[in-house]
Amino acid sequence: MIRRKTARNASTASAAIEREGRPPVEAIRTAAFRQFAERGYPVVTVRDIMKACGLTQGALYNHFRSKDELLHDIIASTQAELERVCRQAVAEAGEDPQAKLAAFVRAYVVRHCRLRVEALVANRELGWLDPSRVADIRRSRRAIRDVLVGILAQGVERGVFAPPKVDGREDLKAVAMALLDQCTHVSMWYGPGGRLAEEQMAALYAEMALRSVGAKRPAA
Amino acid sequence: MIRRKTARNASTASAAIEREGRPPVEAIRTAAFRQFAERGYPVVTVRDIMKACGLTQGALYNHFRSKDELLHDIIASTQAELERVCRQAVAEAGEDPQAKLAAFVRAYVVRHCRLRVEALVANRELGWLDPSRVADIRRSRRAIRDVLVGILAQGVERGVFAPPKVDGREDLKAVAMALLDQCTHVSMWYGPGGRLAEEQMAALYAEMALRSVGAKRPAA
Repeated sequence: MIRRKTARNASTASAAIEREGRPPVEAIRTAAFRQFAERGYPVVTVRDIMKACGLTQGALYNHFRSKDELLHDIIASTQAELERVCRQAVAEAGEDPQAKLAAFVRAYVVRHCRLRVEALVANRELGWLDPSRVADIRRSRRAIRDVLVGILAQGVERGVFAPPKVDGREDLKAVAMALLDQCTHVSMWYGPGGRLAEEQMAALYAEMALRSVGAKRPAA
Repeated sequence: MIRRKTARNASTASAAIEREGRPPVEAIRTAAFRQFAERGYPVVTVRDIMKACGLTQGALYNHFRSKDELLHDIIASTQAELERVCRQAVAEAGEDPQAKLAAFVRAYVVRHCRLRVEALVANRELGWLDPSRVADIRRSRRAIRDVLVGILAQGVERGVFAPPKVDGREDLKAVAMALLDQCTHVSMWYGPGGRLAEEQMAALYAEMALRSVGAKRPAA
């Protein structure tokens, strides 16, 4: 159980952070992700996080007004970076919707194989945020889904995708959600020491996505 | 945010439980699922749960020794029922691996569209359990995955499935995990008032699964 690991791991990790000489705000973010992932947001105190960084409790308030603001900061920043990475992958993939879908899935899966602690906190601990702070994160999640829906719609329009129909109609939002759920949750079980490397996971998931939406291949 | 809803919803719901005249242990289970889903395990007290049921705090200890035992009971029982439902669907689907896969996915998706509160608690709150109590739940999860891996292996052997290969090799466990993640997380966004009915979701997901594993159709 990730959540039940002792705080010792986090302390050891934060000693490493200090040695790397990162600016305090980055050290705080890293320690917060680890502490929230290992022990759960409600039981972690500001004191725990700062102790894991080797910083005084007051140092947090130079950067964040509260633990809630810190949680928002780390989730919102990882979410924004995910959106940026996905948009960039699609932008660089050229015009073929099949290439765009594969690029999107590859980028998304590699990131979720790599940033498992961040993904765990962003997904499991989001509910602890004050509702007023959740809106921008949800907006970015919808934006990512809409990038995917846009690729699917373009592929259908060009005749290179034939997604499954339900009672004769397509529901591209549902298909996009199914693909996103599949790709997001590699973060919950993927281990870097496992049978598949990140790039192999990315290739497997891209192939499953292309098949799911009935990609015609070969294209540009 | 489900987690931030006031306790009022749970109280109203539990009044309904009482009217239905369910035995106390069932009322406690239902109230626990709702309270843990709405507010998160660590902040819910035994007192909150019993108040939501309209029962005295002591009544809990007739059935469960602790809040931890209660959390284990509700997650383990919903997990066991999921395993039973999946095995039954496969057993009733006949001999064709394609029919088995479709039946498995349909049963799994319908259950996750319907029991969203239960799925949310089983997935998000599992980490709060004492590690000694997690083993049987993990065992059942692996058993479900292995049912799916078995169907895929049988389909490959009979030449009706051609799952994507990674560097020339199949990884049926990874494919099974991808399909399970896709199906599990409908519980996080599916709404009964949405565009698709449960059976339509089931049909959509079964079709995506069959395509993903390269089902040849038509078969028996």
